[in-house]
Amino acid sequence: MSEALRVTVWNEFRHERSNPQVGAVYSDGIHAALAGPLREAGHEVRTATLDEPGHGLGGDVLASTDVLLWWGHKAHDEVEDEVARQVQSRVLDGMGLVALHSAHFSKPFKLLMGTSCDLKWRVADERERLWVVAPGHPVAEGLPERIELEREEMYGEPFDIPPPEELVLVSWFQGGEVFRSGCCFRRGRGRIFYFRPGHETYPTYHEPVVQRVVLNAVRWARPTAGPVPARGRSEPLERLG
Amino acid sequence: MSEALRVTVWNEFRHERSNPQVGAVYSDGIHAALAGPLREAGHEVRTATLDEPGHGLGGDVLASTDVLLWWGHKAHDEVEDEVARQVQSRVLDGMGLVALHSAHFSKPFKLLMGTSCDLKWRVADERERLWVVAPGHPVAEGLPERIELEREEMYGEPFDIPPPEELVLVSWFQGGEVFRSGCCFRRGRGRIFYFRPGHETYPTYHEPVVQRVVLNAVRWARPTAGPVPARGRSEPLERLG
Amino acid sequence: MSEALRVTVWNEFRHERSNPQVGAVYSDGIHAALAGPLREAGHEVRTATLDEPGHGLGGDVLASTDVLLWWGHKAHDEVEDEVARQVQSRVLDGMGLVALHSAHFSKPFKLLMGTSCDLKWRVADERERLWVVAPGHPVAEGLPERIELEREEMYGEPFDIPPPEELVLVSWFQGGEVFRSGCCFRRGRGRIFYFRPGHETYPTYHEPVVQRVVLNAVRWARPTAGPVPARGRSEPLERLG
Amino acid sequence: MSEALRVTVWNEFRHERSNPQVGAVYSDGIHAALAGPLREAGHEVRTATLDEPGHGLGGDVLASTDVLLWWGHKAHDEVEDEVARQVQSRVLDGMGLVALHSAHFSKPFKLLMGTSCDLKWRVADERERLWVVAPGHPVAEGLPERIELEREEMYGEPFDIPPPEELVLVSWFQGGEVFRSGCCFRRGRGRIFYFRPGHETYPTYHEPVVQRVVLNAVRWARPTAGPVPARGRSEPLERLG
Repeated sequence: MSEALRVTVWNEFRHERSNPQVGAVYSDGIHAALAGPLREAGHEVRTATLDEPGHGLGGDVLASTDVLLWWGHKAHDEVEDEVARQVQSRVLDGMGLVALHSAHFSKPFKLLMGTSCDLKWRVADERERLWVVAPGHPVAEGLPERIELEREEMYGEPFDIPPPEELVLVSWFQGGEVFRSGCCFRRGRGRIFYFRPGHETYPTYHEPVVQRVVLNAVRWARPTAGPVPARGRSEPLERLG
Repeated sequence: MSEALRVTVWNEFRHERSNPQVGAVYSDGIHAALAGPLREAGHEVRTATLDEPGHGLGGDVLASTDVLLWWGHKAHDEVEDEVARQVQSRVLDGMGLVALHSAHFSKPFKLLMGTSCDLKWRVADERERLWVVAPGHPVAEGLPERIELEREEMYGEPFDIPPPEELVLVSWFQGGEVFRSGCCFRRGRGRIFYFRPGHETYPTYHEPVVQRVVLNAVRWARPTAGPVPARGRSEPLERLG
Repeated sequence: MSEALRVTVWNEFRHERSNPQVGAVYSDGIHAALAGPLREAGHEVRTATLDEPGHGLGGDVLASTDVLLWWGHKAHDEVEDEVARQVQSRVLDGMGLVALHSAHFSKPFKLLMGTSCDLKWRVADERERLWVVAPGHPVAEGLPERIELEREEMYGEPFDIPPPEELVLVSWFQGGEVFRSGCCFRRGRGRIFYFRPGHETYPTYHEPVVQRVVLNAVRWARPTAGPVPARGRSEPLERLG
Repeated sequence: MSEALRVTVWNEFRHERSNPQVGAVYSDGIHAALAGPLREAGHEVRTATLDEPGHGLGGDVLASTDVLLWWGHKAHDEVEDEVARQVQSRVLDGMGLVALHSAHFSKPFKLLMGTSCDLKWRVADERERLWVVAPGHPVAEGLPERIELEREEMYGEPFDIPPPEELVLVSWFQGGEVFRSGCCFRRGRGRIFYFRPGHETYPTYHEPVVQRVVLNAVRWARPTAGPVPARGRSEPLERLG
């Protein structure tokens, strides 16, 4: 790792505590499973969860986050609108966002996309195979040409997102569907990566190859120290008239 | 015109009534100036304004609109959130949206973009020259390679929009700025065209070449009778296991 | 059909004559199978084949073609370089090109893409299912949300093309692969649609739903009467110095 | 600099030797001016010029180059077709290419774009102002929101390139034109950045802010160690039938 980033992993952290099957897979929460490999890679990682005050994102947490990971599912509505808007605003200001799996329906992601983000789904213990369609993309670094997940939830097209600016991964599902599973978006000065896998009952985030995608996505989504745009009323730079 | 579309022209219609300078340029309102050439081209055109009940968009107006034009400026905040969400929803469902000039800051456009839509601006009676950068695009049909507007408001980059899927026009301003002035977006099953010119104190929408851009944009943004996506829980199409 | 276009269907026309299995499926050649539905839709359709003088594209054929369809496979190398360059040049000048199936490796398509256009393949009588991922796109008009082809050749990712400007169809294959099967490109003043299905031993082009895709693609790729760009040395439009 | 790259700067190196005005600006050649800041940034930099054997790109030079810079103008035709094809091939294989100024008409760039790459031009000692339109893009790192060049050649739209996947810079010219001046393309496993400024009679490449753009572009275009795609005939991954 060339550059240590300040990463915050946000997790709803409900399934793990209410569903023993999920708790068995992610005993310390999905956030802990995601945070581990990022720490090992040298990043400065914090976690935050829904039931903490301010959802764990109060104070200067967002302001001091380079890249935010977001996993949520059954409690999207409990996220305060104001916090969702703050995440949106920070992305426009340069913070990276890695939206994971059911975060397609999270408030911050939907605000940033402007679309319904709806899709097909099915939980049936089926096989998913993610194909790299952009082998030269930074998110594909160190990956094999396909990722096999023996059991995952199915997400099917048409996925109602804006056309991604870069499409890195496309999934094949045993039941007959396809899905754009690794999607890059630029919004304001920030970058967003959507990554499909990660249903809570499967050990997906324990897979090293999946951890590698997340690691690459975090690195790709890091802020750039570009110009801070001046906006509003502007004096002419050339003589008029 | 091959196909008559149901077009609704929405206008804030405040400047024209409160500012005699604007009233002199657009005596019947900007909506009337926009509606005229669309009617002449054979479209079925209605107008709607802010101060009508439901902003003129109640009942089945949106549901029976193929393409909606939107001009607003100083009263964006007075547009009901619910109406803005209905416009967003109709676009995702297939309705076209042509956002004009200061509509970059309108509620429906911002909801659909997910960004701040901020920019630089200046009103200084300066020259704008719009260059066609995609000469084969349907919105460029019948246009010269550049459009000259002797006096317009300046809008300057960086314009905080998602990267447009197609960029058709780029403006040069006398004062030294540039701007992405003709931008195509696809959201859900609908299409959005943003067109920059049209400050209320200038006779821009009376210019035939500008009317041609609007006409082309309406046609480009028309709905397509494609599949209505099935979403939510889906049965497998192939045998699992 | 709103507009009658001048369409030329180019076919290699070798398999049909040398392989009885193919001859049984396409007795008059793939070009005839493609031309029929386009004629019924009101277009003015000509066909041209490899073994005709000038590959059937001499004289003013290209100059008087609005949209060219191209099917080739085993004799790509026999297409004269000069003819391939003329096709490229006409596309840049506004002619539409619909490249079908193994035309991914044809000279004109490769010249226009600038990449290897390589892919995975397999002929194994397997099922292909094409999903519409852009349900509002003109090429999706009148389509169901998925197209099922009981037996087709497999093409697999990564398909070495430039990122398509619009992605309309993604294929699922029984053997485990995915493919970007309906891809839009704009080059110069022209438009290119790549459509994957159509292996010569299967009756794919006799399927009405496939014919509909081709019809939509032809219409989408039609030329636009936009400005003819002035290039080269240009006088300033503003006073310098 | 986090990562030292193997950079090769290719220059036609004719103007500098035949035109004293150019020789005065770039006494050691444009390649030397470009190479200096890249070396200072820690990269391993070689130069190569047209009149060297194999244009200086023989042996394993291309194979051991991470990013190639290309400046050419009046002798594009003297570049061997085979060398141009080797450059194209290496880009598809992952090498980055930074095409500078009049390299828009170079053989490798045109092969990779597939279009005419034509444009308007004028040498009239006029002012160019490059606006950053994507302030969060890696190529914009450390840049001000605009770059002012007191005297440059004008390049004007429509620039006949494929739609760039990312547009970073747009130029304003004193004479009234605009131009897409910083354009990103992905082809195969490689990345291409086109950067407009750099007419041979002006000291553009001595400007620190221009050097910063080139440095950022080199870094952005570096190869990614992603999967090497398997192509050609492929066995099924799932059981058929």
